[in-house]
Amino acid sequence: MSLEPILARIDTDLEQSIHRLMELLRIPSISTDPDYVSECKSAAEWLVADLMKLGVDAEARATPGHPMVVGHAGKGSLHVLFYGHYDVQPVDPLDLWHRDPFDPAIEDTASGQVIRGRGTSDDKGQLMTFVEACRAWKAVTGDWPCRITFLFEGEEESGSPSLVPFLKENAEELSAPDLALICDTGLFDRDTPAITTMLRGLLGEEVIVTGPDMELHSGMYGGAAMNPIRALSSVIASLHDGAGRITVPGFYDGVSEVPDDVKAQWEALGFDGTAFLGDVGLSVPAGEADRTALEMIWSRPTCEVNGITGGYTGNGFKTVLPSEARAKISFRLVGQQDPLAIRRSFRAMVRSMLPPDCDVRFADHGASPASVMSTDDPAFEAARQALSDEWPNPAAFIGSGGSIPIAGYFKDILGLDSMLIGYGQDDDLIHSPNEKYDVRSFHKGIRSWARVLDALANAKS
Amino acid sequence: MSLEPILARIDTDLEQSIHRLMELLRIPSISTDPDYVSECKSAAEWLVADLMKLGVDAEARATPGHPMVVGHAGKGSLHVLFYGHYDVQPVDPLDLWHRDPFDPAIEDTASGQVIRGRGTSDDKGQLMTFVEACRAWKAVTGDWPCRITFLFEGEEESGSPSLVPFLKENAEELSAPDLALICDTGLFDRDTPAITTMLRGLLGEEVIVTGPDMELHSGMYGGAAMNPIRALSSVIASLHDGAGRITVPGFYDGVSEVPDDVKAQWEALGFDGTAFLGDVGLSVPAGEADRTALEMIWSRPTCEVNGITGGYTGNGFKTVLPSEARAKISFRLVGQQDPLAIRRSFRAMVRSMLPPDCDVRFADHGASPASVMSTDDPAFEAARQALSDEWPNPAAFIGSGGSIPIAGYFKDILGLDSMLIGYGQDDDLIHSPNEKYDVRSFHKGIRSWARVLDALANAKS
Repeated sequence: MSLEPILARIDTDLEQSIHRLMELLRIPSISTDPDYVSECKSAAEWLVADLMKLGVDAEARATPGHPMVVGHAGKGSLHVLFYGHYDVQPVDPLDLWHRDPFDPAIEDTASGQVIRGRGTSDDKGQLMTFVEACRAWKAVTGDWPCRITFLFEGEEESGSPSLVPFLKENAEELSAPDLALICDTGLFDRDTPAITTMLRGLLGEEVIVTGPDMELHSGMYGGAAMNPIRALSSVIASLHDGAGRITVPGFYDGVSEVPDDVKAQWEALGFDGTAFLGDVGLSVPAGEADRTALEMIWSRPTCEVNGITGGYTGNGFKTVLPSEARAKISFRLVGQQDPLAIRRSFRAMVRSMLPPDCDVRFADHGASPASVMSTDDPAFEAARQALSDEWPNPAAFIGSGGSIPIAGYFKDILGLDSMLIGYGQDDDLIHSPNEKYDVRSFHKGIRSWARVLDALANAKS
Repeated sequence: MSLEPILARIDTDLEQSIHRLMELLRIPSISTDPDYVSECKSAAEWLVADLMKLGVDAEARATPGHPMVVGHAGKGSLHVLFYGHYDVQPVDPLDLWHRDPFDPAIEDTASGQVIRGRGTSDDKGQLMTFVEACRAWKAVTGDWPCRITFLFEGEEESGSPSLVPFLKENAEELSAPDLALICDTGLFDRDTPAITTMLRGLLGEEVIVTGPDMELHSGMYGGAAMNPIRALSSVIASLHDGAGRITVPGFYDGVSEVPDDVKAQWEALGFDGTAFLGDVGLSVPAGEADRTALEMIWSRPTCEVNGITGGYTGNGFKTVLPSEARAKISFRLVGQQDPLAIRRSFRAMVRSMLPPDCDVRFADHGASPASVMSTDDPAFEAARQALSDEWPNPAAFIGSGGSIPIAGYFKDILGLDSMLIGYGQDDDLIHSPNEKYDVRSFHKGIRSWARVLDALANAKS
């Protein structure tokens, strides 16, 4: 069959597609914050209702956390599992938003129209590109391009605590497909689509250092009492050496060099590290001294402090010695690094560095290894060609600095390879105030999925 | 005249004295928080009204910040200036309070009755010991023990920004007195009263380190983008060397050793450093390796981090790279240390340590030098004797770890020596949740002031 009527339908239905996306964006489904439990449920229910309108056999399945949306539709020799997530990041600091993050709107910008709001790019807008492609296909043909299992998660931004048990319990239902399609990544640049084949893993740790039993007056105790902020700062300061390498013992075990041919392909992409940093007001790559910015992001592990707090942080000044200081620290992992071994080594290192009278406890915020896809499957080349047909430049196989542990879980639990295709851009401000998604990304993203599904079905048949 | 009827009147009026104090404690006069401006004004007005009931010619004088309460009463050859402050510390973390901090109550404890609430010990309860002593004196004799000028400040907990200009503008009105009496210090221990003759100074600095222009996603930028928390932690970690000494260049200029005879007097007090630290869950003095805990608190300068914040600090985890990290850092100063020279040196040191792509700005939270009183004035010995008459043990001349810059201002601007007498205890939890003041401190404090005023008047006449 010809794709043209389906692509034409996508074009004429774009306004309605955006209208539907706006409805989903208005639901503040912040998964990390216990105050938004019912909103996460509402987002799941909205998706179930929308899928059912398409004739998908869909339902929201309860988990110990937020619900999973599971749906089944279509038939044929190709059977894919599509994954997206309906939860979003917190919105603070709220005063830096130019509008209510959950009252999305189309805005005109110098580089075209954007949809502004929390979750537009990560991941509701991306997730809906696939749903809208299916909707157009169904409207035009009355049928589905292939057999599709839908899986929408509501805990991606909080470490996916329910996902592994859920995949294990429902492995038979979910593992039938040939391939998993994951829409939570970006274009290489505005005109160059990408299939992400290397993903960094993520280890999240919260470190809580305690000192005195209670907050003290620094006039009365200052000098004599251990200050836990000082102890925590010393730990953080020693996590990197002078050359930007991470000092946790054994940290680099399992980190391998990117092969020369892949490095050559990356160099051909013409990534402009200076512009990449310059866009956010920076000039010098801050990682290992002997690496390029692209290597730092795609192929090297990191250690970052994502948050720190202790003592008095309000207006004015308060001369207290705090009884506690906390930091949220995350490690991006690559290759064969073992997250649990690194956790053990990190915790032992922190304990060994603490001065007398300080104690430490840790909170676990997830541990997932890196993923590397096997691009020798012909489906990858078929999809790459389909994307190249839609966008100005040919598609590329790339790495990603972000962590999408779901790809690792699909491999380990369901035995599935994952194909990561998405239409986000570097300036989408995901996880930040004023998140946006280009209308062009949304529109061409829908068209891309129609092309990819067609190509995958043809490659299989 | 005999003191006995006045002391008896104090005893019989104690319940009413506490009742009056409770009224003042219920006014949440938090000076550092702009949300409590009107409450600070109310506290000043309450004090004016109470002084006027005693026949004091009192009024609240406007300043660019919170009002000053000034009053004049009595006559005679002795003329003292009495100082206290009606503002209080913030109350967070509020969830650690066992009761509403501004709904004070008498509680029974293992060591006797206490008044629980914010400001009970610092400084409303202490301030009112003096007012109640005057009230009893007036009630019994119909007159005043001497000529008294009252000065109650409302910005002590926020660095006293209006005080110096106010003292300068009103120097003639305020500088007539022989001596300043300041009630904002403590007993040496439960049974040993003290006159504080050495006070540490205080330099308060807020350090704001900025990196990227906006908050970034650590997946997209982690490794390549400078993290300002990491930069700030390195600065903090390097403020002390391995022996606990402060590394700011020139910091120890003007620090002199305590004379041997004073050290001997301090040793005779039997200060139990182990118990002092043990009471708050600590065991090892955290300051300079070669100093005792008492030296660290009374005679050595310090550098403490009073608060730190940056990135995501809410529930769960957020993989952001923050654009900014902040710390509130204070220095306690002794001897002849120059606060402004140390500020310059500290700021230069921080700037020199920052990596590329980080900037820093500073906020000034006050700078006051240390004070050392001249105890050869016979009034000091007279007061020491009067306090010894009231309490089980003889009174001592001691140092204080806290900073009461007002004593320095009185000397510099009014040419006045200060006598610092107070009845607080180490376990009063000032600046912390569940602040209290012993009913015994309040009661014997009132009686102490009656005795001290009598002794000072006799010494002068």
